[in-house]
Amino acid sequence: MQLRLADIVQSLGGELRGDPQCVIEGIAPLESAQPGQIAFLANPKYRQQLAASRAGCVIVGAALADEAQQRGDCIVTPDPYLYYARLTQLWKRGLAAGTGPAIHPSAVVDPEAVVDATARIGPLCVVERGARIGAGTVLTARVNVGERCTVGERCILHPGVVIGADGFGFAPDKGAWVKIEQLGAVRIGDDVEIGANTCIDRGALGDTVIEDGVKLDNLIQIAHNVRIGKHTAMAGCVGVAGSATIGAHCTVGGSAGILGHLTIADHVHISSFTLVTRSIHEPGQYTGVFPIDDNASWEKNAATLRQLHKLRERVKALEKKT
Amino acid sequence: MQLRLADIVQSLGGELRGDPQCVIEGIAPLESAQPGQIAFLANPKYRQQLAASRAGCVIVGAALADEAQQRGDCIVTPDPYLYYARLTQLWKRGLAAGTGPAIHPSAVVDPEAVVDATARIGPLCVVERGARIGAGTVLTARVNVGERCTVGERCILHPGVVIGADGFGFAPDKGAWVKIEQLGAVRIGDDVEIGANTCIDRGALGDTVIEDGVKLDNLIQIAHNVRIGKHTAMAGCVGVAGSATIGAHCTVGGSAGILGHLTIADHVHISSFTLVTRSIHEPGQYTGVFPIDDNASWEKNAATLRQLHKLRERVKALEKKT
Amino acid sequence: MQLRLADIVQSLGGELRGDPQCVIEGIAPLESAQPGQIAFLANPKYRQQLAASRAGCVIVGAALADEAQQRGDCIVTPDPYLYYARLTQLWKRGLAAGTGPAIHPSAVVDPEAVVDATARIGPLCVVERGARIGAGTVLTARVNVGERCTVGERCILHPGVVIGADGFGFAPDKGAWVKIEQLGAVRIGDDVEIGANTCIDRGALGDTVIEDGVKLDNLIQIAHNVRIGKHTAMAGCVGVAGSATIGAHCTVGGSAGILGHLTIADHVHISSFTLVTRSIHEPGQYTGVFPIDDNASWEKNAATLRQLHKLRERVKALEKKT
Repeated sequence: MQLRLADIVQSLGGELRGDPQCVIEGIAPLESAQPGQIAFLANPKYRQQLAASRAGCVIVGAALADEAQQRGDCIVTPDPYLYYARLTQLWKRGLAAGTGPAIHPSAVVDPEAVVDATARIGPLCVVERGARIGAGTVLTARVNVGERCTVGERCILHPGVVIGADGFGFAPDKGAWVKIEQLGAVRIGDDVEIGANTCIDRGALGDTVIEDGVKLDNLIQIAHNVRIGKHTAMAGCVGVAGSATIGAHCTVGGSAGILGHLTIADHVHISSFTLVTRSIHEPGQYTGVFPIDDNASWEKNAATLRQLHKLRERVKALEKKT
Repeated sequence: MQLRLADIVQSLGGELRGDPQCVIEGIAPLESAQPGQIAFLANPKYRQQLAASRAGCVIVGAALADEAQQRGDCIVTPDPYLYYARLTQLWKRGLAAGTGPAIHPSAVVDPEAVVDATARIGPLCVVERGARIGAGTVLTARVNVGERCTVGERCILHPGVVIGADGFGFAPDKGAWVKIEQLGAVRIGDDVEIGANTCIDRGALGDTVIEDGVKLDNLIQIAHNVRIGKHTAMAGCVGVAGSATIGAHCTVGGSAGILGHLTIADHVHISSFTLVTRSIHEPGQYTGVFPIDDNASWEKNAATLRQLHKLRERVKALEKKT
Repeated sequence: MQLRLADIVQSLGGELRGDPQCVIEGIAPLESAQPGQIAFLANPKYRQQLAASRAGCVIVGAALADEAQQRGDCIVTPDPYLYYARLTQLWKRGLAAGTGPAIHPSAVVDPEAVVDATARIGPLCVVERGARIGAGTVLTARVNVGERCTVGERCILHPGVVIGADGFGFAPDKGAWVKIEQLGAVRIGDDVEIGANTCIDRGALGDTVIEDGVKLDNLIQIAHNVRIGKHTAMAGCVGVAGSATIGAHCTVGGSAGILGHLTIADHVHISSFTLVTRSIHEPGQYTGVFPIDDNASWEKNAATLRQLHKLRERVKALEKKT
């Protein structure tokens, strides 16, 4: 795959300062890029790598344009990271082979499922009765979409994704559990991406809802009746318990958890490894992580922590005395 | 799908106060149910929703029967939540289409596996040599049951479940790891439900055992030689390390963990996000979670926590002085 | 399956003290082994089980050889646990049926993938264009290896493994997310074992790299551009965020996490449930776990913890006064 700088700016815009005929054969990080490769500089903390970079061209913002130009060819754009994202898409389109059949012959698609003619269903997927797959959506391989579940347009579901398994619901009966059949479904909006082996359960009575533009990483568990607002993103291994309602434009760090029936406002950011135990009504960053330490120090502090309440009582007693 | 109230009480019992000919077309939550729908009221904290509910019928306990009847039709039963569970089952049976072939043609079932004639093996499942699948059990789709593993009667295994992958066992040898072949299997009792992408590893020498009535949610890891007692339920993303023995009637919250070789008594309840680091011999609720806070407050408290042992020493010193 | 003790020492070495014609029909733990079974004693804390064991033969180290011999037949070897590991392998080879076709007919292998003639691709696997699978490697069943990803020699990939799904990368654009196509791949060395439903994402520009001898348990998430050094082992449910570089001979406990862009030295051991939030340059054991307690005690301590910073201020104030 090869592109001239002229091709790139013609497709993506930006101001080219340099040789339009310069041929680019790859995209690489600023510090390791070679003369045939293009790099980007978005985070000012990497600015000192600029002068020494061997990249054939560097994508930069206006503030660093002159500095970049002294080094060699550059493309100037208001948002270099976004430009880089669009460049990877241009590159991927160039790399893509013929896309093969719309529905791979090894996929098991129920005759009563509705798959848009422009969707692609990869090998060994299962699409059940009454499911709907929208235009431009890709089920990569080994993806399940259960009965009556709907996936919008331009979504990407990675291998092993399970949409519409039963939510986890049981009524206790004399020490045993009686299954509550899960009669709802899952509704996924447009432009949603779902990572490998992530699970989204169907609702108990109503539906589990994933709104437009949501991005979920790998190995995430979304329980029944959860609602995730537009453009919220979650990193790997997150667990969201039943009936939680999460706002738009939130981010959730890896292995975090959200308890059931909570409400999270828009623009809330949950740190990795944090358990959300109460509703959050104000935007902001929230954290609850035990700080890592060498094991011996941790042991001493953890042992004291188990007596923390008593320690406070002792401080109170001292305060009374003095 | 439609049922008259008379049909419902004929199937499930309960005392109908209202019109037996009233037609029900769906089940819905009390607060959003419409006149053609049936709802239930199990938790007294939702009692204030009763009067305003538009539901065609409400399932209630004896204590609220008169109040419910003033509103409109109701079914009176000792345990409304259990009644609701059984009603979802009735509904599901009505919705179910023809069940299709007992073994889907895309499944790969070894000729030396033993599958009961009333079991169903869904699309793209793999059932290996010597595995046994009991009566009425359903492998939904893309489920693996490995060599010599057994699944009892009336179990449901959701998509992506892996039964009988190798346990994680290696002997160190000059800095490298030598595989310990896992020669045991997995034995699963009756009425067990296993959520999407959950994994249960085969034992090293003996078997990993899941007793009758256990319910496991999605994305759970059960290591080799674990034993889980009857009717224990675990929420999503839990990890149980090797050779742990968990009692009957326990519950384990989401993303909790249990270290290896521990013993947990019956009727123990582990909170979400809690790591069990020692055996638990007494029933009760156990917790170990760092409380969530706004990030700035967390940072201050976490920094202090790393000095907690020293803080205790300072309090001790003060106590000596005063 | 049967082996005489003479067959075992001929294959695996060790000094047999006892009857070479003694027939062994299984391997079992020391405390439950029967006369037809062989057991091992590696951990001195189980020494008191030796005299009472009914095992047909016990594998022991030199220090316990005389004591073991008084009980009955034994094999003496410098490392009984390693000997046991090799014995399980011997046993497994004896148990294995004909291995079936090299590539199962239900697997979907791209014509442009390169699969070594001695590799085995199990049922319902997907191997994409340009992927390479080395000699002796086994993809058990339902495993994905994505475009251009490579797996070395003698690797084992358990069911549900996903190699080469897209890394989680997006550029923000007016509140929405623009996909950064993931143009790298995954490179896996020799003698790597990967547990069920574990995911390893492809790199953004460069590759995600898993070095020789790495062992990953089930349900682990390895993000894009991570590098894991030789012979490092990780227990189930671990999450490693993007661009983390982990040394050789490390161990990571279950459900632990490692944040992105960190560097971990060789011979670092991370405890279960611990989040690594900073690079670690010194070998050793590191921990950060909230200690479990009965729920009432936890509540009191957790509430105090949220005031810990203020408690320190109060201690400071007391120190000034006294």
